[in-house]
This record gives sequence, C-alpha cells and structure tokens, in this order.
Amino acid sequence: MDIPKTLTIKNVKKAYKEGLTPEELIQEIIHRTEIYGDNPIFIWKPSMDWIRTYIDSLPEDDGALPLWGIPFAIKDNIDLAGVPTPAACPAYRYIPKKSAAVVEKLIRAGAIPIGKTNLDQFATGLVGTRSPYGEVHNAWQPEMISGGSSSGSAVSVALGLSAFALGTDTAGSGRVPAMLNSLVGWKPAVGAWSSSGVVPACESLDCVTVFAHSLDEAEQVDSIARGYDPECKWSREIGWGEKSLPKKILIPSSEPRFYGDHEELYRQKWNNCIARIKKLPISVETVDTELFEKAALILYEGAYVAERWEALGDFVESHPGKTFPVTETILRSGDKLENTAAQLFRDLHSLQEYRHEASYILHDAVLVLPTAGGSFTREEVRKDPIQTNSLMGLYTNHCNLLDLSAIALPENSRDHLYPFGITMFSLSDSTGRLSQTAHAFLSQE
Amino acid sequence: MDIPKTLTIKNVKKAYKEGLTPEELIQEIIHRTEIYGDNPIFIWKPSMDWIRTYIDSLPEDDGALPLWGIPFAIKDNIDLAGVPTPAACPAYRYIPKKSAAVVEKLIRAGAIPIGKTNLDQFATGLVGTRSPYGEVHNAWQPEMISGGSSSGSAVSVALGLSAFALGTDTAGSGRVPAMLNSLVGWKPAVGAWSSSGVVPACESLDCVTVFAHSLDEAEQVDSIARGYDPECKWSREIGWGEKSLPKKILIPSSEPRFYGDHEELYRQKWNNCIARIKKLPISVETVDTELFEKAALILYEGAYVAERWEALGDFVESHPGKTFPVTETILRSGDKLENTAAQLFRDLHSLQEYRHEASYILHDAVLVLPTAGGSFTREEVRKDPIQTNSLMGLYTNHCNLLDLSAIALPENSRDHLYPFGITMFSLSDSTGRLSQTAHAFLSQE
Repeated sequence: MDIPKTLTIKNVKKAYKEGLTPEELIQEIIHRTEIYGDNPIFIWKPSMDWIRTYIDSLPEDDGALPLWGIPFAIKDNIDLAGVPTPAACPAYRYIPKKSAAVVEKLIRAGAIPIGKTNLDQFATGLVGTRSPYGEVHNAWQPEMISGGSSSGSAVSVALGLSAFALGTDTAGSGRVPAMLNSLVGWKPAVGAWSSSGVVPACESLDCVTVFAHSLDEAEQVDSIARGYDPECKWSREIGWGEKSLPKKILIPSSEPRFYGDHEELYRQKWNNCIARIKKLPISVETVDTELFEKAALILYEGAYVAERWEALGDFVESHPGKTFPVTETILRSGDKLENTAAQLFRDLHSLQEYRHEASYILHDAVLVLPTAGGSFTREEVRKDPIQTNSLMGLYTNHCNLLDLSAIALPENSRDHLYPFGITMFSLSDSTGRLSQTAHAFLSQE
Repeated sequence: MDIPKTLTIKNVKKAYKEGLTPEELIQEIIHRTEIYGDNPIFIWKPSMDWIRTYIDSLPEDDGALPLWGIPFAIKDNIDLAGVPTPAACPAYRYIPKKSAAVVEKLIRAGAIPIGKTNLDQFATGLVGTRSPYGEVHNAWQPEMISGGSSSGSAVSVALGLSAFALGTDTAGSGRVPAMLNSLVGWKPAVGAWSSSGVVPACESLDCVTVFAHSLDEAEQVDSIARGYDPECKWSREIGWGEKSLPKKILIPSSEPRFYGDHEELYRQKWNNCIARIKKLPISVETVDTELFEKAALILYEGAYVAERWEALGDFVESHPGKTFPVTETILRSGDKLENTAAQLFRDLHSLQEYRHEASYILHDAVLVLPTAGGSFTREEVRKDPIQTNSLMGLYTNHCNLLDLSAIALPENSRDHLYPFGITMFSLSDSTGRLSQTAHAFLSQE
C-alpha cells in the first residue's frame, strides 16, 4: 500500500485504518533513511533490531492510546532507555537505563521511537554543523544548513522519517531548525515539560520541544508531554491559561535585521507576515525590542555561560581533544577569571529586571519576531562558525531567559527554497493565548 | 489623659476616640524615648521637628484611613523621604528623595513614622549588636541581646514607642528579634511586599517585615503593604490563597538543638509549644529537617554571599575602615577566589533541588520550628560574634532561599525573662493557611 511521503500523526493514523501495520511503516522509514544516507540525520539509526520491541509491546489498537504506532525521532541529548546518549560527543556517550520523562510519556501513549538524531554537540549551536557525526543538511537543499542544535530532529520530520520529533531549546534550538525546514517548532516554557533525562546545556534554561508539520499536532504532543514531574527540579505545573486571543500583538518598532545573500527576500517575507498579522482581529502595537536584545546578551556576553561550564567543564578537562573545537571554545568561555559569582549576581539582577519588564509588556499580549533573519550555506558557517551562529540567534536568545513560551511558524510551509518563519512569544502562563494567535495567523496562509 | 504603656493599633485608636491627639501621642513617644536613652534603639530619633509634617498632613479622622495617626518605626535600611538612610554605617548614609514603597503605602493609610531604628549594619546579623550606633539592648533585660538585624524596630514596639515597626528579613532578621522581644514577627514571601527603597543586603532574598503585638495587627499591616509594585524587580503578585487550616503541620523528627545557659528551659518551652500544636484539630507529622539545614548552608557556606559583595563591595573598598569589622569580614567572604560563577551555578542548582523538594513537602502543610534555640548576653556575643550569630540563625536561614512565608509567634508574650517563640513556615502562595494555623496556635495560649 501507499505510505504517505510526509508522515503526520493524522495521515499515519489514516494509513493504519486502511491496513498499514507499524512494522511496514518502520520498514519504510528504515528504507527512506538509507535513501538519505549521505545526510547525517541520525546518530542512532532506525533499525528493526531495536525498534521491534516497541512494536511488539503495542496493544491492539482500540483507540485508547492517542499516539498508537506514531513514529517519532529523539534528539540525541535526550535519553532513550538502553540506547546510547552521546549528545554528539562520542567520548561523552553513556547508556541510560531509563528513558527521559517526556520520551517515556510518549511511548506510553503508543508512539514508536525510530532513532536518535544528530545535533550541534551538547546542544550548543543554532546551525546544525557542529557535530563530529557530520553536518546535517537542510531537508531540501543539501548545501544549506539545517539549523540547530536540534538539526536531525527537524530534518527527520521534514523528510518523512518521523511524524514528529523531540528537540531541545536553550537559546533557539527548537525554533531555528523549524524555520529552516518549514515546520512548526513548539517550545514550551522551561519546566512545563520535564527535562529529566536530558543532557544539560545551560540547565536552568533547557527545555524539551517538538517539531511537527502542523500546530494541531504539536499541541497534541504537548497535551501528552506537559505536566509536573517530581523527579525534575525545574519542573513546574504550568497550565495553558485562557484559550482566547490576547488583547494585543506586539511587533518590533524598528525593522528587524535580515542578512545573507537573500536578505531582501527575507525582508519581503517578514513584511508579508506583518501584513497577515494586521488582518487579524487583534490590535497590533509596536514595541521597542531593546529589552529583548539586552536580555539576549546575558546568555553569552556575561557570566551566564558558566552554567555550561558547570555542567560539562569536568568532562572537557578530563577528555582533552574530545570536544568539538568550536563547542569547546564556547564552553571554555564559561571558565574565564572574570566570571565571578559577584558578576553572575550582577547579570542575574539585570535579568530579573528584564523579566519584570517583560512580564509587564507581555501581559495579555503576544510578541512576534522573525524566527531568524536569513540562512547560510554550510560552507559559510564553516568559514565563520561564531558569527554566522550569532546571527541565527538574533531573535531567539532572549526567550528562555525571560521565561517565555514560543511557537515558531512557517511563513509558507510549501516554500522549500527560502524557508522563512516567524516566532510568537508569550509569558509562560499564557500558552492558550499564544496558541490562539498562532492558529489565527496560520488560518490566513 | 492616660496613654497606654504598650501601644497597639487597637488601643491607640481607642485613645484617639477618647480624646487623645496625635501630637500628644508623639510627645509621649519622644518622652519615652528619652527615658530609654541609654538603649540605642534609634539612629534617627523621634522629634517634633520632623514628625510634625506627618501630623499636620493628616485629614480629619472620618474613619477612611485604616491607620490614622498610628505611630510606626522604620528600620534604618528602609528609606523615609528627606531623612538619612545610613543602614547603620555613617559613611554609607544618603538622603532619599522618596520613601520606600511600603513606607509610602503606610503613610498614605494614615500611619505616622516616628523614627529610623538601629540595626546590625547592612542588615547583616541576627544579634543586634553589630552597629557603630551601639548595641541595642533587649527590651527588658539590658544585658541580653535584642536579636537582629531589625533590633531597634522590635525593641521600639516592645517598649511602647511605636504600635508596629518595619523590619527587613534576609536570613531571619524579621523573626529572631520578634522572639527575643516577645512579639509577632510577620515575614511575607520575597516579592509579596515591594522592596523598592530598601538597602540591599542579599538582594534576591530581602524582604520587608513587620513587628506587632498581635497577629491581627501584623495582618492589618500586611493588608496595606502587600501588592505588586512595577518599580520593584522582585515584586510579585502573591495573594493569600485559601484561608483555611492546612492538611497537616510538620514538626522536626529529631529534637532541635537548644543552647546557652538556659538550654533546658528553652527545650521545655519548645515541648510546651509542641503539646499545644498537638491539641489543634490538624494532623501533625514529623519531617526530617535535613533539607532545611542543607538549604540554610547555601546562604553563607557557598558562593551566595557574593550577592552581598555585589551590592556593597564597591562601597567597602572605597571606604577603608568605615565598615563595622565583623560585617566587613562577612561581606569580604563574598569576594573569595573560589566564588566563581560556575560555583554559584552549582549552588543555585542545589537550591533549585531543595526548593523543588520543599514545594512537595510543604504542599498544604505548615512547618513549625523554634524561632531560635536560645539567646546570649551582649557580652557573650562580643566575645564570639560569629558563632553566637550562627546559632541564632539555626532555624531561620533556609526560609527565604526556599521561597517561604513565615510568622514568628511568642510562646508566651508575657514572659519577659526568657522569651521563646516558634516560627511557622508555608509556601509563598499559602499565607492564608499559615495565618489560620498561627491563629489556632495562639488561641491555645
């Protein structure tokens, strides 16, 4: 029978109804993965050897399991029991006994893990090329970056290897690859989904995310993944709040920066999005984005990067030459002499001020920014790995620091040549408003 | 006419009804302050020179102002417009243009500020002797400590110089002096009352508190002082939550440590409190207090003390010899080489774990601990300023780190010889439950 080229929760369920079996679907996914063999999407590849146990343990499909037989990919810094977690660093690799809490929930809901995906090492990067397992190609244009750090996860969904995929997001890793591969990137507030069983990047800011083809399907995954976890110290009980449109949408008062060879095209696409937003039945106001820019600087310019060193410094020091060079440079910047505790308190106090201001500005409001202002070829990133990466994070770095939820949306999900997208942001307790705004925007496509 | 020896909101209101005027009351307070002249309760003393303006600006008493004419004292690290704020350090002294937000609210509610009270310098200490303005004597036994850091505030209430007084509390400064002077010490959650206009001690943990003769009157002040302040970055909208008894009261599973010459007496008083608690219509469970002890260690043993250095280090460095010696030693411990940002992140991550655990343990529960396990003479503190101070904080230091609210209650408010008290703690959103438990306990006296 015909297996849909693009896998979604909806069309996989339909195919199962029409007679497809999970085993046949997994065989097809294994086959497709071979076809894309020169794109290093996976670190731990789909194979019947290890997937069969998940198929075999599925009960009869009586409709009780909401994700019965749905194939999903897992970013390789998130634990899947019995399978190595290298976090894109072979020397770091360990084999967890237990799956990450979110993975466990999805499997209990009937979903089938199909592989562990490549990433920017230790989830540090927004480009998808910082991995000893190879540079993940963009889903449709192999010479372009896939975005990172959740590179393989996004590409696996875009190419029909999974119906959805888990990423993580500290500084934009669940959003940038969504844009570059024309997907929805759903980033819950830090703590709304458990992060137990996830390799720490910048622990207080890390969260698990999902890539999906539609907002509805991202929300379906959220409904299973969300919830308090007593085992995870960052976990919080965060509901959706009111499911209604916010009082206003905030857009930047000055034009965002676009970059790269197709700068003008991205600007047009952004203006197109703004035009669509202005047609929504919500008041649109402009906002000075300086606050978000100042918050973003805290992530790499101050003492905050010491949180990365705190998590991985011992490993880096005891495994010379085993960390990806650019990743090691970033991690080591957390170990500078000027990164004193007093300096960190200064940064934390500034951040508290920005959070306080953001909670005022974003009360009953949704902020819209470009997800990124352009893209790069893998070659360009190789030539200037730091600067290109910084540019990809212009509109993402502030988010988790300010305790926001975010949804990255494609401007036009059929555009595989110059994929562009916007991200909508809300306060952590306002996912309902955020979701309603995103749905309203998409209904205008 | 007879002015009550002890001033309370209630009896001052009654006296006003019977014909007393605010001017007469303030004159009496000035007179009483002279009588207690050898106890350095105030840094900025009551005087008609500066108080008259507050009296003059009171409207006719038509019952609209809930605190009409009520005299209150202000700890001298909290701004009162036009009057110096030295925070017990003459060289630090500045004259604020604006009153602290909480002071402003109380004055708008009709209260009359009567002086700025002595404190352990920069609110660093629990003894009340660390001030170049002199050691504050205990209200009834001059050779004994008053407790700190809000020493003068507590003593001014105990001795009938004010009906209530503002303190601050980072590590117990709003609770220990309450016990030692037989008062109620009300410590809201950090951010529930604005801390704008307060000299930072350990900024992320500082809050303004109140000392009063009764729980009702502390709550009356809370009802005016509580509320979100857009000007204060720590401010949060924190309501009282449900006003009902909690599901359970937690008491320590092993006996707390008591100390000093009257150790046995304090132990008896504690057991007396526990017996009263067991008579309440609430289930009483024991809890291992290790969690609270571990959290407490973070305040001084790790990199957290750098927050104090961040706030005051520049001042200390640029004013050699101007900081109280023991205070300078503590502040300088925030500047140690091992206080790196990475170390602070380790501490913050541990703290996050403790908070997570506390929020689980204290769900629908109130924790009871001694406020302190004993007391010292001023002489004893002079001989061993660090160790005596540490002992006074055995049961207080964990509180703000774990984001708890607390109420210090006297075991027997008529005991002026060996005053002892307990503190009840709840999660920050459960003041209603905390208050109900405290009322139930007091009703057993």
